[in-house]
Amino acid sequence: MTEQLQRLIDRIQPVDEQAMQAALQHQNQLTKPPGSLGLLEHLAVQLAGITGEAKPLLEKKAVIVMAGDHGVCEEGVSAFPAEVTPQMVHNFLRGGAAVNVLAREAGADVICVDVGVNADLADPNLQSRKVRRGTANMAKGPAMTRAEAEAAIQAGVDTVQECVQSGYRLFSTGEMGIGNTTASAAILCAFTGLPAADAVGRGTGIGDAQWEHKCSVVRRALEVNQPNAEDALDVLAKVGGLEIAGLVGVILGAAANRTPVVIDGFISSAAALTAVRLAPDVKPYLIGSHLSEERGHAALLAELELRPCLHLNMRLGEGTGGVLMFQLIDASLRIMREMATFAEAGVSGKDDGQ
Amino acid sequence: MTEQLQRLIDRIQPVDEQAMQAALQHQNQLTKPPGSLGLLEHLAVQLAGITGEAKPLLEKKAVIVMAGDHGVCEEGVSAFPAEVTPQMVHNFLRGGAAVNVLAREAGADVICVDVGVNADLADPNLQSRKVRRGTANMAKGPAMTRAEAEAAIQAGVDTVQECVQSGYRLFSTGEMGIGNTTASAAILCAFTGLPAADAVGRGTGIGDAQWEHKCSVVRRALEVNQPNAEDALDVLAKVGGLEIAGLVGVILGAAANRTPVVIDGFISSAAALTAVRLAPDVKPYLIGSHLSEERGHAALLAELELRPCLHLNMRLGEGTGGVLMFQLIDASLRIMREMATFAEAGVSGKDDGQ
Repeated sequence: MTEQLQRLIDRIQPVDEQAMQAALQHQNQLTKPPGSLGLLEHLAVQLAGITGEAKPLLEKKAVIVMAGDHGVCEEGVSAFPAEVTPQMVHNFLRGGAAVNVLAREAGADVICVDVGVNADLADPNLQSRKVRRGTANMAKGPAMTRAEAEAAIQAGVDTVQECVQSGYRLFSTGEMGIGNTTASAAILCAFTGLPAADAVGRGTGIGDAQWEHKCSVVRRALEVNQPNAEDALDVLAKVGGLEIAGLVGVILGAAANRTPVVIDGFISSAAALTAVRLAPDVKPYLIGSHLSEERGHAALLAELELRPCLHLNMRLGEGTGGVLMFQLIDASLRIMREMATFAEAGVSGKDDGQ
Repeated sequence: MTEQLQRLIDRIQPVDEQAMQAALQHQNQLTKPPGSLGLLEHLAVQLAGITGEAKPLLEKKAVIVMAGDHGVCEEGVSAFPAEVTPQMVHNFLRGGAAVNVLAREAGADVICVDVGVNADLADPNLQSRKVRRGTANMAKGPAMTRAEAEAAIQAGVDTVQECVQSGYRLFSTGEMGIGNTTASAAILCAFTGLPAADAVGRGTGIGDAQWEHKCSVVRRALEVNQPNAEDALDVLAKVGGLEIAGLVGVILGAAANRTPVVIDGFISSAAALTAVRLAPDVKPYLIGSHLSEERGHAALLAELELRPCLHLNMRLGEGTGGVLMFQLIDASLRIMREMATFAEAGVSGKDDGQ
């Protein structure tokens, strides 16, 4: 671990119990049976703990879309060709992808970062933080070196740090990288020992035979590299991805800045698990979003102890589930600011003695 | 059934298969793996079928909150006293309730209708369509007469009809009525034969002993009234509620006007089941929202074949889950209007020959 990253991790503080108590107390005075808004109430309390404010305003928000390519694509694991990664980066920059549309709906910005695309990309709206042009094929050896993984994490940290300085208060993870469900499945298996068949999904839409093949590629990557589950950086470097490492940095950076970070789908959750293994204190800064259709996602969420509010059978990534969650976060905070209390509204409390 | 209601039901048409095909075709050209936006794609296709437009704009939307009181409250079935119904109506009219806050977040209006509150309410913002001051105690006899149930349904129809005339294109059901989870549980049991213990929940938050008692009250209401499952109006009149009947009217009226209607939680779903039993053709006009914490809700949704997108453990009613769903509907329609196609964005399709 670089000294810079270790210092960042050391900055991550426990959440603010006092602010959480204040938020909870306010919730219980509002004109509704206590707890009846369920996870919206939990969210508001968690956001108070993260920010240290009982009723935070998190208006400026962004989904950070990290892009990178995967050498393992040469094994034929994806339904789409690898050139789609740079093509989709252009689509993000022109505002035409699903995540752009949903971010506009949620009043959020899309910040696109090239941390490892296998193409020369030049666009004033793209953050260029390229560590290398795609990973190596993990079925034959490590995807990247430990130093490269650290550099990609630092790219994510730097992205978040600059965003926080310009006023962003809420983030979602997002990603683009043909082949990255394969890397994410390998990460899940490496950390938890789950069999490949329970971690590998259909990605962008492969058939049965290609799925069997994808499972065997994941098993081979694990055998060839022998990642050490006790050493998160080792797992990330050997069977991860550059954009996944970038997201690890986004998550660590958000937590160090007491800023909530929404975890999108399968790939983002693999990044979150890596971040938690590197720095267990990030856990309370994470907010779940949706339950993906991708096979291993439920296992990843269980490992992270995140409850997905959205059950939409989505499997697109990009941050699409994360930005949809922004709307529920806005809703939970608006409840805190605008709902009337029993006293204000002259409404009677519960019969059992309120 | 009154002639007026029968004419309304006869107006309900099948959804537009051609518009659905057009919507699906457009979906499959967008820069994402086909189907990868899951239920957001299903929603857009359904909305096309309902409205007859491939890319409808449903900007003007409202949650219709029907309010009514329940004679069965005298049996001690609720954690809150019955006077909370009119108090909460005032809260809705002043904008301080949860549904008001969430409707503002979703850009929707709250339309509050008194169809049977047991109090004299006068407020320029309240739609007064009172059929009677609260139902009778269903544990001792029918909650209302058949004619009263029809009048309350008509009140809902008239509300929706006026809304459609003033440009509303999307509705959610909502309700207020202390005691109405008891009536909804009785409706669920009457239509499906489910045992009371599987249909009765904690409502606004009762303890174990009061829950046992609530179950016994539901069983007694069913024994005393012997509602006929084959006659939906009989069920509604004997063990329903005035606001529930109003919502039946909202649902029938929306379907007759080819307008989508989002079904909120447990009580709204009991109304939806009643509407479907009265007029099976309304089913494709219904849109699920959340899975409530209230015990019988999953059974009701299964009966309605609705899939809840939001898993928030809410149990408040009012239309709170329905208006949260408005945001997902907006998102699904924005995807249709704003996402780039593969051709527009110059993105390669699937390897298997697109």
